[in-house]
Amino acid sequence: MPANIPSFSDIQEAHNRIQSLIHRTPVLSSSGINEMFNCEISFKCENFQKVGAFKFRGATNAVRLLKEKDSLKGVATHSSGNHAAALALAAKQLGVPAYIVMPENAPEIKKKAVQGYGAEITFCKPTLEAREETLEIVQKRTGATFIHPYDNFNVICGQGTAAKELLDDISDLEIIIAPVGGGGLMSGTSISAKSMNPDITVYGAEPLNADDAYRSFMKGELILAGPPKTIADGLLTSLSPLTFQIIKNNLNGIFTAKEESIIIAMRIIWERMKIIVEPSSAVPLATIIENQDLFKGKKVGIIISGGNVDLNNLPF
Amino acid sequence: MPANIPSFSDIQEAHNRIQSLIHRTPVLSSSGINEMFNCEISFKCENFQKVGAFKFRGATNAVRLLKEKDSLKGVATHSSGNHAAALALAAKQLGVPAYIVMPENAPEIKKKAVQGYGAEITFCKPTLEAREETLEIVQKRTGATFIHPYDNFNVICGQGTAAKELLDDISDLEIIIAPVGGGGLMSGTSISAKSMNPDITVYGAEPLNADDAYRSFMKGELILAGPPKTIADGLLTSLSPLTFQIIKNNLNGIFTAKEESIIIAMRIIWERMKIIVEPSSAVPLATIIENQDLFKGKKVGIIISGGNVDLNNLPF
Repeated sequence: MPANIPSFSDIQEAHNRIQSLIHRTPVLSSSGINEMFNCEISFKCENFQKVGAFKFRGATNAVRLLKEKDSLKGVATHSSGNHAAALALAAKQLGVPAYIVMPENAPEIKKKAVQGYGAEITFCKPTLEAREETLEIVQKRTGATFIHPYDNFNVICGQGTAAKELLDDISDLEIIIAPVGGGGLMSGTSISAKSMNPDITVYGAEPLNADDAYRSFMKGELILAGPPKTIADGLLTSLSPLTFQIIKNNLNGIFTAKEESIIIAMRIIWERMKIIVEPSSAVPLATIIENQDLFKGKKVGIIISGGNVDLNNLPF
Repeated sequence: MPANIPSFSDIQEAHNRIQSLIHRTPVLSSSGINEMFNCEISFKCENFQKVGAFKFRGATNAVRLLKEKDSLKGVATHSSGNHAAALALAAKQLGVPAYIVMPENAPEIKKKAVQGYGAEITFCKPTLEAREETLEIVQKRTGATFIHPYDNFNVICGQGTAAKELLDDISDLEIIIAPVGGGGLMSGTSISAKSMNPDITVYGAEPLNADDAYRSFMKGELILAGPPKTIADGLLTSLSPLTFQIIKNNLNGIFTAKEESIIIAMRIIWERMKIIVEPSSAVPLATIIENQDLFKGKKVGIIISGGNVDLNNLPF
């Protein structure tokens, strides 16, 4: 195994390192949903994680592992989403400065959240180029360490702790499904799951409208996302070489889900479980909706990735 | 104490009777909300109860206590809300027939829920008179026992088990707040709370636009609700002589909350806690928003009454 691929013992160490800093989120189920799909689904609820998303695990592990001299200089990233808030709070909890580059058109609520965690925000034009350039300027000025949202060994180890907790709680799962965006959660999930139970089936779940991971997996080589348009706004990014390698090694398959199935799945979770999940979190259940025969009678685990939605802009 | 007022030991017996049939719902808190209001709030989450509301506790206790010959004939009620679904499922779980009278304009989703629990629905015109008349006809035909949604000793005992569980979990609460509609939940809550801790302060929380309990409490005599118009659609009903008596004996006071505070409170709970609560459940937090000084530094328990909302008709 190449040195840069996390092993399960790296994830176990990450868990020991971060568990006093994160929430141990609950695993919930719904008899109504189980009846609907003739299977037993256990939902690992990272919408209840700090900052409302699993991203806090990876960010905390990465910040916690900084060398002392680097931690004085701080951490930096560019993000308009959950990783920005996660890194800002993880840094705050550990007394490390955080510098976040955000596109100037990022939602007000996300800007406020990052500000509220005490991070310094630098705004830039809403292009990837502007984000990367601005980040470079910020890094040069501050000496801060860039924490990539998923193409990062320590981040992947942190994300893998969610599946570890799920399988610690429900050890007899036969299938585990996680959403795939950049692949950090999926990578960590697959390492934990296959190590804790070599017989488990591991699936990725991806919006059909952002199916770069599906196509990469099927073709056996990394294909970057076009400009994807999906309601699952946490899953727009493409895999990195590192996450693609892990996913290729570990997954049994990747399912894609139509936009309408994602919305139906999200609504089922809201109405039946009374919990708020973001569209990206509904993609695994959407793949069950579209492939019911494959899940009949099975014990299935799903990672609910987060719960950050704009209540003024709901799809129903 | 008059024979018809439940004691705490009645509630303890109810708890023993129903606990294998109900969910023991979680008690959640949010450090963000605690910071916002400078107090420590523990939310007893009955939105996670079966049928999505505390009503399942009282209904189950009432059905469970039927004499055998009565249970063969079944139970009946008129309701367009959570009590209808609660009674239908409670009866189904215990193999008892259920007959529900619903106004013909009840929301489709509620009709389907009650049907899904196998109850027989009789539709009627949407007036209280029509509902009562139709119920009488159904009772004559079936011999079913009428289970009132709150003016019922056994129902009140069942509702009191939520506060009992909350105080079993968090024994050092200084204040407990429940929403007041017909007063069943409030009555049971106040009996449990004052018995488990005589020093606890018990408040009712009521929409300003449906403030019959507030006015009754302040005047010392039962005043019926006008035709109230509030987003908190679970709190439209008036107290009964029985619930008024209990509330008068046990409560330290009743707060009213403006509609705009209820909507803000609901949104705070959705956004911060990532749980779906119905407007009625947000009224206690709304009273904290309007009376922040009274709660500063206190340990407060709130009963979240339910999570049944129409996602197509949200106030934000």
